[in-house]
Amino acid sequence: MSDSLAALLATARGEQPATLLLRNARIVNVFSGAIEEGDVALAAGRIAGVGAGLYTQAEQVVDLQGAYLAPGLIDAHVHIESSLCTPPQFAAAVLPHGVTTAIADPHEIANVAGLAGVRFMIEAARGLPLSVRFMAPSCVPATTLESSGAALDAAALASLLDDPALLGLGEVMNFPGAISGAADVLAKVQAFADRPRDGHAPLVRGARLNAYVAAGIGSDHECTTVDEALEKLGRGLYILIREATNAHNLHALLPLITPATSRRLCFCTDDRIPADLLYGGSIDLMVREAVRAGVPLVTAIQLATLNTSEWFGLHDRGAIAPGRVADLIVFDNPADFRVRQVYAGGRLVAAKGRLHRSVVLPQLAPAPSLADSVHLDPATLNTAALRVPVQPGALRVIGAVEGQLFTHARTLAPTVVDGCAVADPTRDLLKIAVFERHSGSGGRALGFVQGMGMKWGALAGSIAHDHHNLVCIGADDASMLTALRAVVEMRGGLAVADGETLLATLPLPVAGLMSDRPVAEVSAGYDTLLNAALALGAGHHDPFMGMSFLALEVIPDLKITDKGLVDVNRFALVDLFTGG
Amino acid sequence: MSDSLAALLATARGEQPATLLLRNARIVNVFSGAIEEGDVALAAGRIAGVGAGLYTQAEQVVDLQGAYLAPGLIDAHVHIESSLCTPPQFAAAVLPHGVTTAIADPHEIANVAGLAGVRFMIEAARGLPLSVRFMAPSCVPATTLESSGAALDAAALASLLDDPALLGLGEVMNFPGAISGAADVLAKVQAFADRPRDGHAPLVRGARLNAYVAAGIGSDHECTTVDEALEKLGRGLYILIREATNAHNLHALLPLITPATSRRLCFCTDDRIPADLLYGGSIDLMVREAVRAGVPLVTAIQLATLNTSEWFGLHDRGAIAPGRVADLIVFDNPADFRVRQVYAGGRLVAAKGRLHRSVVLPQLAPAPSLADSVHLDPATLNTAALRVPVQPGALRVIGAVEGQLFTHARTLAPTVVDGCAVADPTRDLLKIAVFERHSGSGGRALGFVQGMGMKWGALAGSIAHDHHNLVCIGADDASMLTALRAVVEMRGGLAVADGETLLATLPLPVAGLMSDRPVAEVSAGYDTLLNAALALGAGHHDPFMGMSFLALEVIPDLKITDKGLVDVNRFALVDLFTGG
Repeated sequence: MSDSLAALLATARGEQPATLLLRNARIVNVFSGAIEEGDVALAAGRIAGVGAGLYTQAEQVVDLQGAYLAPGLIDAHVHIESSLCTPPQFAAAVLPHGVTTAIADPHEIANVAGLAGVRFMIEAARGLPLSVRFMAPSCVPATTLESSGAALDAAALASLLDDPALLGLGEVMNFPGAISGAADVLAKVQAFADRPRDGHAPLVRGARLNAYVAAGIGSDHECTTVDEALEKLGRGLYILIREATNAHNLHALLPLITPATSRRLCFCTDDRIPADLLYGGSIDLMVREAVRAGVPLVTAIQLATLNTSEWFGLHDRGAIAPGRVADLIVFDNPADFRVRQVYAGGRLVAAKGRLHRSVVLPQLAPAPSLADSVHLDPATLNTAALRVPVQPGALRVIGAVEGQLFTHARTLAPTVVDGCAVADPTRDLLKIAVFERHSGSGGRALGFVQGMGMKWGALAGSIAHDHHNLVCIGADDASMLTALRAVVEMRGGLAVADGETLLATLPLPVAGLMSDRPVAEVSAGYDTLLNAALALGAGHHDPFMGMSFLALEVIPDLKITDKGLVDVNRFALVDLFTGG
Repeated sequence: MSDSLAALLATARGEQPATLLLRNARIVNVFSGAIEEGDVALAAGRIAGVGAGLYTQAEQVVDLQGAYLAPGLIDAHVHIESSLCTPPQFAAAVLPHGVTTAIADPHEIANVAGLAGVRFMIEAARGLPLSVRFMAPSCVPATTLESSGAALDAAALASLLDDPALLGLGEVMNFPGAISGAADVLAKVQAFADRPRDGHAPLVRGARLNAYVAAGIGSDHECTTVDEALEKLGRGLYILIREATNAHNLHALLPLITPATSRRLCFCTDDRIPADLLYGGSIDLMVREAVRAGVPLVTAIQLATLNTSEWFGLHDRGAIAPGRVADLIVFDNPADFRVRQVYAGGRLVAAKGRLHRSVVLPQLAPAPSLADSVHLDPATLNTAALRVPVQPGALRVIGAVEGQLFTHARTLAPTVVDGCAVADPTRDLLKIAVFERHSGSGGRALGFVQGMGMKWGALAGSIAHDHHNLVCIGADDASMLTALRAVVEMRGGLAVADGETLLATLPLPVAGLMSDRPVAEVSAGYDTLLNAALALGAGHHDPFMGMSFLALEVIPDLKITDKGLVDVNRFALVDLFTGG
């Protein structure tokens, strides 16, 4: 028996003082569904005992004076990269909101840096007061119609399995492959037999849904309607209700939460930008909104704790019960769920929305290959590279839609200057360019987009889902070159330019995706970028996130990668001009 | 990809005929809580697809004409040995009742034959249409106050872990050891970290319960009141509601089943004799009784399927959903739940209460050591061995209670003949003897019992929980010797004698616990025994089971093992006479 288990049992029996005794709590019991008045005794970083009047001796006693005590919240699915921060600063953002465990899919960095990227995330998260568990990214690259920085097959993914932080297989976005029984996809799914295997199957229903589930997938976080979610739940999928910066599904799915269904439902954030995490919240926001909308408090908390721990087999957390990790949150008003204190492993880590001063979050320096991930000869960023000689037929144009990941496919007459198709802000027609940046191949593609609303200047960045090549949209070529060159010079990041003038930049030196600076600083820098884009007339709430998803060729209708314009419905490259 | 998975997906997509299509079913959806009208397509022994009108082609179509279709039932905790049959004939008993998976704890045979016994049970169950999963018996021997046939330490138990049929750790009956942190007990619990670990903690509450849970235990099946069960559930234990031959907890615990709690509740049978299984039922009986008492049908079925699969991590069953094993039951009347057809692995295995003719249940011949487990020199079974010379003080007498495992401890004046204390049926005072039968040590103990009601003759058997030495109760020594000698001659079994006359016998040659004959024959043989005992005046419903538990020294107050009379509350051997 380990010393810590001996101490835990001795405290549980009442024979040894607790390290911390939380008295006079209203304990949210996710097993019984009841609110239980009592005390919680901690030892060795775990919960030793729960009950009323059972424990009196402790090294430290905190009288909660009737405040509520609940298990620490669990985010069922998050891409930490979307916070633009590495795990320690992501932890800084979410711990004050009561999130003590995050299930992370390092899909973005894997597409840049493969296993080295995944391992960096795991190492950077090791030992943090936020427990991070990882899902192996299943779709690297997402498709063959892009150039990503790495390719991970089943054997590569399986090599991660012996890491204790690795839980299962990340969202199988290649749902057509799973449904059709593609050997490479099923090899990955089968390599993670007996592990949780997350899904991603927007709008998949009926017989195709049956096949997707039969392949071994156990969850989905892409539901947007109750009807779709109920069918998926009925076929055995856990439904992870998502509230992301760019996908707001919570309110639409609230009617899904009933006594009959709730045990199979969890909350997740998927992708949230730093300001949303810092000032809006994380899983706490979802509990708060759900309770405001009439979901019983304990039920809402179950979606954020026990249910998620059950789906992932994390039986050492998700409840206030003996033996479980002492991850706990304190709040006062069940009608307005605001986390007042956060304990992780029995230690106070945050209070009143701020990290406790004792919390140290060391940054892990990325390996040189991760810090130098933009491989592109700056000399290739020139006027000629952005030229689009006009050709017969109409111009295929991406129709962007604010707040949506899908686009429309349009065909328009080009605006022609000197024999070239050009951006034309008077028609809300911007040029979009994608430059390969992983291998220095010189690969690039040009296209046009409507719906972004910019009148002047350009945005560029090294975040372009999921391949994360350089992407740029602009009202003129000079602005585009200025922005693109800035991103290359920063070795990754985001930039806003107007003509020769660089208006704002945010360096993201870790794989071109993440900063190594404090999250508040990153958030402020991102705000500066957004304000600069707004000044250029950008119409979207977040034009950078909008831009990054114009490159994601797994969501209809028309997208662009470094290989060219992609007709997603035909899953094929198409020419920029329709031809004569 | 395996051929069977390819076939499953092709059928799921509707591109390949199902092996079996069950049409027009009322499908019990344990995920959504709804009854869903539709069809279920099977392939490769699994469920390929579920839905209305999705599937038309099949090798075989069965029109269920609106009958109900539910997942095969799961018994969450059973000692197969109590059926007096080995796994194949246990399967013959429970399959027609719709039980398609049993979680077995081979605790009894392990106490006789150690790992060889456990491995025999696993091998005997391999390939049956009943899926049997095993829990490693954690308490062999139960205590140091008995001589069992084997001792299994943590390393021995861990050696079972690589068998795919081995799920976790069986009921940790040594709850005082777990609570106090005894090294040997915790070593076993920790050897099964990340596996389900069943508990057994009658009346353990408060701080001691906290310690028991903190030690790593995850379930309990010893609750007899809602109050006790609610406390245990609230501390994180799954509650396995039990309806055994000798412990009827179902009706007392029905009020426990609410929308808030039901997900953490399962049904189990623990110990049921063959006639109870054959003619009363198994888990189907519990569903039936629960529904009759007002529990919603789907909830009751969840306790018998999904909940149990979740506690044990058996995610390939417990629901009608794509990819899960095609274990299915058909029934007509939800108000009187009677299983009409049973499918196991997609094959019809029982209908109208009888096994299907195609089902073959081969008996595995036990190894010689298992078939020859009674090691006792018959010459030691003589009058002298049963003599109890009177000593100073009063006689300590076990007070048996019909239908209960506990006893009372009484002190009475002995009835003395020729200087010896003797049985005295006029006072309902019978002699009880336990003879060590594992090592041939010659160890034995004598005592007296009240409350069994026999007027003449004797019962003897090689079932004596948990050490399974020879046990005998009798109204006179001659009858006891006749019965005991018969048991030895059969190499294990049960016998009823009166004087020199052997009235009835049931050979149990497999470890002295189980027959290798068909279960109906075993049941008939057991009935003959019971009738013979009844004719001797036995007052209990089942005096053999009553006798066998008089030897179980972990349940208060006074018991007897081969080492002597045990004061369970003091956990110590005590003299038969109180002394002068």
